[in-house]
Amino acid sequence: MSELNVVDVTDPADPRLDDFRDLNSVDRRPDLPSGKGLVIAEGVLVVQRMLASRFTPRALLGTDRRLGELGADLHGVSAPYYRVEADVMAEAVGFHLNRGVLASASRAAELSVAQVLEGARTIAVLEGVNDHENLGSIFRNAAGLGVDAVVFGSGCADPLYRRAVRVSMGHALLVPFARAARWPADLHVLRDAGFRLLAMTPDEGAPRLADAMDGLADGKVAILVGAEGPGLQEHTMRASDVRVRIPMARGTDSLNVATAAALAFYERDRR
Amino acid sequence: MSELNVVDVTDPADPRLDDFRDLNSVDRRPDLPSGKGLVIAEGVLVVQRMLASRFTPRALLGTDRRLGELGADLHGVSAPYYRVEADVMAEAVGFHLNRGVLASASRAAELSVAQVLEGARTIAVLEGVNDHENLGSIFRNAAGLGVDAVVFGSGCADPLYRRAVRVSMGHALLVPFARAARWPADLHVLRDAGFRLLAMTPDEGAPRLADAMDGLADGKVAILVGAEGPGLQEHTMRASDVRVRIPMARGTDSLNVATAAALAFYERDRR
Repeated sequence: MSELNVVDVTDPADPRLDDFRDLNSVDRRPDLPSGKGLVIAEGVLVVQRMLASRFTPRALLGTDRRLGELGADLHGVSAPYYRVEADVMAEAVGFHLNRGVLASASRAAELSVAQVLEGARTIAVLEGVNDHENLGSIFRNAAGLGVDAVVFGSGCADPLYRRAVRVSMGHALLVPFARAARWPADLHVLRDAGFRLLAMTPDEGAPRLADAMDGLADGKVAILVGAEGPGLQEHTMRASDVRVRIPMARGTDSLNVATAAALAFYERDRR
Repeated sequence: MSELNVVDVTDPADPRLDDFRDLNSVDRRPDLPSGKGLVIAEGVLVVQRMLASRFTPRALLGTDRRLGELGADLHGVSAPYYRVEADVMAEAVGFHLNRGVLASASRAAELSVAQVLEGARTIAVLEGVNDHENLGSIFRNAAGLGVDAVVFGSGCADPLYRRAVRVSMGHALLVPFARAARWPADLHVLRDAGFRLLAMTPDEGAPRLADAMDGLADGKVAILVGAEGPGLQEHTMRASDVRVRIPMARGTDSLNVATAAALAFYERDRR
């Protein structure tokens, strides 16, 4: 077990803090060419999840109190912990951060669809989920409700964006995900791996979620979820095995996409 | 059927637009003494729901296009529709509003707990849900998943706050709600009305949600949900009939409070 690499910093302009500088104003979308490509974890719980993930921290920044709270989680971590006072942190980061600790990591190599399917029993497949908050929620729900991996079709936001990571409670770093290179053609990779493809739809003529899941208890299932307004594209629907709907009360339309996904994950998990 | 009361306004400073002035900067929390007490609906869908609700519009503000989209919904509405160009609207409101139409209403008289229980089969009871977005989501989920009314215990945010109304997709105006005057003592009013009180808990020793619901298919049910971190207070737990948990995957903690509520509503609704 290596010694903790704690470095006290008193100058908010210290270039060693650059990973964390002006988090709100600088573009922190690692998916964009203008972004720094860094993944940022905020708060003790999310930093712990980063430490447990395939995203190896480059640096940590935080108060002495959060250092104490992380404690044993930092054993064996070689990245420096830049220990600062709260006001130094606020000045470097650009705002006061209640959570008191941050970690930065480079993007890990992308996983392939085949890699994330390995050993998986239930996966979520997303299309057109372009809102970082919804995406983060879906990862949180996936982790809590027994979904093993996430596959992205076209039009999805970046799960490693700071806001998505935060809303996911760090599960965007832990639940394996992969991007389908050809969409929706790559759905055949899922089917070839033995997954039944369930497409969520608001269509009132589709079978109820619960009834459809009844027949699938022992098999592998991929739950396909589309954007909140338009839902899944028709060609994606056609490439699926069965369409399912959540029964909705009269006079209402759809649920939030992350909520609809949670209901499907739950229905799958409850058997 | 009365004529539409359409009034063209070209001056953003026109005092007739004051209900909608500086929506972001002025305090729009109708629950606070400094607030104007007005409920604001944004967008065609939410305005339609306000028109169908017990909140009678005082005024509407919008573009000609949105007037056309509302069309027949405005028949019989006596409140003026202030028709403006998009830039006049943006200047009055203080920002560009994609949704293109707003309606204001005074707060309707509060309903009593007894009133909202009348005819209800499933209700949600909230404690410590102090986040407007979560509160709005819960109303949206309640409407979609067959919950008839919402009762507020202590520590909840205001469902009529603009953001809560927006996130609820207007269902905060339609799903009846009431505040318990004495908390948790007033839970006996629910029990006296024949409701079984189900308290949601992360406690792993509690029965599973699905198992608990199995025994309640035909009776009236009140689903008690607490704040995301601390959950329901212990004295509230003790006043309930049965504690239930959502089975969670290992290494995860809780779900978002609105998501947890949605799973309970769904489980209740699916039988």
